[in-house]
This record gives sequence, C-alpha cells and structure tokens, in this order.
Amino acid sequence: MDFSLSCPIPLNEYDKVLLAHGGGGKLSNQLIDKMFFSQLGNEYLSAAHDGAVIEAGNRRLAFSTDSYIVQPIFFPGGNIGELAVNGTVNDLSCCGAEPQFLSLALIIEEGFPMDDLWKIVLSIRESCEKAGVKIVTGDTKVVEKGKGDKIFINTSGIGLVREGVNISPAHAQEGDVIIVNGRIAEHGIAVMSSRQGLQFETTITSDTAPLNSLVSAVLDATPEVHVMRDPTRGGLASALNEIASASKTGMIIEEEHIPVSEEVKAACEILGFDPLYIANEGKILFFVPEKEAIKVLNTLHALPYGKEAAVIGRVVADHPGIVRLKTSIGTTRIVDMISGEQLPRIC
Amino acid sequence: MDFSLSCPIPLNEYDKVLLAHGGGGKLSNQLIDKMFFSQLGNEYLSAAHDGAVIEAGNRRLAFSTDSYIVQPIFFPGGNIGELAVNGTVNDLSCCGAEPQFLSLALIIEEGFPMDDLWKIVLSIRESCEKAGVKIVTGDTKVVEKGKGDKIFINTSGIGLVREGVNISPAHAQEGDVIIVNGRIAEHGIAVMSSRQGLQFETTITSDTAPLNSLVSAVLDATPEVHVMRDPTRGGLASALNEIASASKTGMIIEEEHIPVSEEVKAACEILGFDPLYIANEGKILFFVPEKEAIKVLNTLHALPYGKEAAVIGRVVADHPGIVRLKTSIGTTRIVDMISGEQLPRIC
Repeated sequence: MDFSLSCPIPLNEYDKVLLAHGGGGKLSNQLIDKMFFSQLGNEYLSAAHDGAVIEAGNRRLAFSTDSYIVQPIFFPGGNIGELAVNGTVNDLSCCGAEPQFLSLALIIEEGFPMDDLWKIVLSIRESCEKAGVKIVTGDTKVVEKGKGDKIFINTSGIGLVREGVNISPAHAQEGDVIIVNGRIAEHGIAVMSSRQGLQFETTITSDTAPLNSLVSAVLDATPEVHVMRDPTRGGLASALNEIASASKTGMIIEEEHIPVSEEVKAACEILGFDPLYIANEGKILFFVPEKEAIKVLNTLHALPYGKEAAVIGRVVADHPGIVRLKTSIGTTRIVDMISGEQLPRIC
Repeated sequence: MDFSLSCPIPLNEYDKVLLAHGGGGKLSNQLIDKMFFSQLGNEYLSAAHDGAVIEAGNRRLAFSTDSYIVQPIFFPGGNIGELAVNGTVNDLSCCGAEPQFLSLALIIEEGFPMDDLWKIVLSIRESCEKAGVKIVTGDTKVVEKGKGDKIFINTSGIGLVREGVNISPAHAQEGDVIIVNGRIAEHGIAVMSSRQGLQFETTITSDTAPLNSLVSAVLDATPEVHVMRDPTRGGLASALNEIASASKTGMIIEEEHIPVSEEVKAACEILGFDPLYIANEGKILFFVPEKEAIKVLNTLHALPYGKEAAVIGRVVADHPGIVRLKTSIGTTRIVDMISGEQLPRIC
C-alpha cells in the first residue's frame, strides 16, 4: 500500500475525528471530499446523491446505504428499526427509484435486552410492509459491553429507477420552485427532547415515514422533477446548501412559508436551536419548474404525508452556491451550512 | 405495532444478547431463525445464502451485506478496510456473481486518529482496485468516545450473476466432492495472536484476499458448481454444517487432506483451538460433481490464491445434516457446528 500519500485533512487542526465530522455539516463535507472522494471517487460516488444510480442489464438501479446510531433507540413517534427502514426507502425514492430490496446489518452491544431487539424486529417488519420492501440479506454482529451503544443498524437498499426521470442535486435550475411536503424539524426535536427528558405541553413526535408512495404520486403527476432530497442530518439548511453547491445556483427561501409547528418553534426557542438545521425523517424537498408547482402541490395535499406541503422558495441565477432567507420581518440573510455538530446521534 | 407477539427466544434462558449470538454458531443460528427469519423471512432471505439473488430488469443480481468489527483493526496481513472490501467481494462471488458496486458505511468513535482513518481509506482504495469494484455510495457516522470501538465498517455490494449458474447451499448432492482453495484457519489465528500479543516463530498472517477472479476461473472451467461458500466466522466446520443442513445431505471430510500449515497447527495447540472452527477470509469451499474435480483443481492450482487447493471430502447419502471427520489416525467423529463464541470480533 502506498502509505507515502499523506493525510489530506490537516493533522495540526484535526488529528482526531470529532463528532462534527459525522454531523452532516462543513466538517463532514470536508472529510468526505478530501478523504473519501479524493481516493475512492468515481462518476457514481462523486454525484453526491442520496444514493448511486447504476446500470444493471437493461435497467437503472438506485443503490444507497445508511447506518443508524440514533440515541435513544426508542423515541416519541418511532424507534431505530423503523428509522432504518424508512431512511433507506426515502434515500432510494429521492433517486427517482421504487425501493424494492433492503439489507439489514446489526451491531449489537453484549447485554442488550432480547425483548428490545424483538420490538425492533417487529417494527422493522411493520415498516417494510408499509413501504412494500423486503429484507433480502442480513448480518448480525455482537461487540463486548462498553464497545458499542445498545444497537447500531445499517440498511442498504436497491430500487428500480423510473423510466424517464433523471433526478440529481446538480439539476436544480433558475425558475425552479422549492416544495416541502410538510412541517419541518420534528424528528430532531422529538429525539432531542426525549434525550434531555424535556416535557413540552404537547409531545412532539418524530415525522419518520416511508415516502415512496408520495414520491411515486408526484412523479406520476409530472416527470419534470429536477431534484428530490430528504433533509435529514443538518436539516433543511444543509440540504439546500448541498443542492446550491452541486447545481451552482442560488436560492431564496421565505421564512413565513416554511411549515413549522408552534410546538417546534417553542421547543427551538427553549433549546436555542434554529429549526432550519434540525433533522427531518419524513420530509422531501422537490425542485420543479414553476409551471408544474400547482400540479405537485395538489398531488401532495391529497396524500397523508403531504397535507401541509408548501412552496418555500425558488432557485435564482444570482449568488450561485448561496442560500438566502427572507425573514418574516422582511430582512434577508445568508443561511449557511451547519459548521459544527448541533445535534449528535439524531439518526 | 403488534407488540402482543412475544419474543421467540426463551427469555428465561437468554434475556440479554450474548457475544455468542454473533459468533456464527448455534446461538447465532437460533437468533437468526427464530427472530429474523420468522418475522422478516421471504423467498430471498430464507435461502440463507451469502447474499440474496434478486431479479432486476433482465438480469439476476446478487446483493449482500456485512458489518466488520474486527479487533484489532490493524492485524498481521491486513486491516479492517481491506477485510470489508474483500469480505463482500467474496460473498457476492459465492453467489456466482461478478462483484461490481459496493457501498461503504463507517461508524467511527470520536477521537479516532485521523491518520489511521486515512490508512484505512488507502487500503480500501487498493482493495477495490485489486478486485475491480467501485465504492458508489457511502455514509459516515461518529459516536461519542466510549460508545463505539475505534471504527466499524459496513459494506454492502451488488454483482451480476453469471448466466447459467445456479449456486445455493441447498444444491449440495450425493457424489459431490468438496474442494478448498488452500490452507485454513490463518485469518483467525493472525487476529487472535496479535490481540493476545503472542509471538510465534513465524508470523502467521491473515489470508484476506479478493477471490472473484478465482471464482470466475472455476466457473469458466465448469458451470457445474453446486455450492460455493466462504468459511468465515465459525470456520470450515460451521460452513459445512450449514450446507449439510440446507441441502439435507451428509458429508465426510478427511483430516489428512485438509490443508493446515505447521505454524497454524502449533498455534492452535498452544491456544487450545481446533483449526476447523477458526475463521478464514481468503478461502472458498467448492462443491462439484466428482467428474469435474480434476478440472477445478487444475484451474485452482494455476492461480495465486489456489496453489494449495485440495479435495477435502465428499457428500454422501448417509447421515443427512451431519458432517463426519475421518481423523489422521483412522477414527471418525462428528464435526458439529460451534456452540458458543470461540473467537469474538474476528471479522
């Protein structure tokens, strides 16, 4: 092995991996670009999509992977098993694919209660049935007590990409409107408040949900979808910044049009968080030409996970790579990618 | 969710997950059968193959997943990165597929040295180049110090199944001979001795290697291969027992024909291990009709990872589901599946 190549991350700045290197923000992106893309990069990986679109025989397939390390593993509105199924289902959906086959790999800490494992398996089963996918291959590893944290789950998945669609974060273009299918920031706040033992007047529950039917309905309504992306780690702000960067476009989003519940607003104020940076697990951003917007909104509003869908902004030719927010009081400010780690172990 | 279903693992026996539940032996199989197959089972998963063979468009694909938790992460002859690539390449190969696309998902413990991560990435790159596969999608998560163990790696992979082959552990049949491509038990002993700080006269190194070219050459020589299986966790004995059970056949293996180096024999004596139960990472078992054996042996002997290939036994109609060993001194005994956890964290 050629160990003469020296590490591209400046070791005088970061000689050890920090939590923020897994946070979905700037440090994550630096690590991914300099270390992984530089050495392992290829036309698939470098597309920086939620999954890779590959050719197999006469079909295009989407292939994606995610490890789930959420803490606590049971949280209001869901658990790690459900999250692991829905997360990969949604990543494949965002590639314009119909999710079909999932793998399931568990890393369990010795001493983990057997009955909790059983609850997680039941929940995985239910989530697979809801999403119409099958677990077709798996792996179970156990590490010594103190060398893991209860349970980590990896799901990878394969889906058939729909004919005629070509979704990519690089495809956002001037004139696109940006639509989200509902209220943001609920997953992150649900996990965070259960971790901290916080009680709000209403319990905020995770929005974790399989969105493949919703995506299918949108693509049935119009094949002219340029980008789909689920704003998970790093929230809406990070997802928009990634798309702005990949497509070299600018974006303007309007605070008053972004759906956020009063409960989440209140929780964010107490906790000192900005909902734009909080993880979602049941939301997708759709970038479509303005003329298609009504069609897409009507489609979403008729669906259980799309009732509160809204146009939250648009793509502009100005300030490429930059996302600007028009605040409720009429000022505008830049919405940057998250720099550190706001909420570790959220998914 | 229907939590009324009660856990199928008897909680008065096993109310917590043990290391042995991940050891590849009897407890592992109990967990997989009763918990995963019972709830998540389908025609793909229940094949209990090294990977699933699925249909996509006009082609059959193999899809497999494995998490790597080996400790130490750098060991004589390899490291966790190389292992993660080769392991999934070999699982796909055992399905009769040409491995093409891999996913890479890392769970890193906070504080992990950046330079070690870099060495692992370089090693992953080199292994991918050797095997001719591409990392096409990935994920990086970081957990707090003390909540993981340096680094865990999941690779999942996709390969195109070769036309005309139909490999399955259920396909072993009377009259098949069992061939292994070289000396067994080297990976497990290399990891174990480096973990214990043991020094032997010669350093025993891991046999980790990508075996896709070797498998390709065998399938070029004869399409009549009934079973291929890489005997990793649980070693040769567990792999043979799984195949005997899936195919409802009996097997007789001959101790004096099983390739084991003198160094490994000596190390096993000192450590009190049986080489039949020690993990391999560069070995494959081939089950072929007797008439094809010479062709397969000649093919293997001409290849770098097959020079010491040997016929180690045969499939018989007697004692279905049971593997018997003819010892060097002429007695025979049953070789059972490993019952507990002999060597934790070996892969």
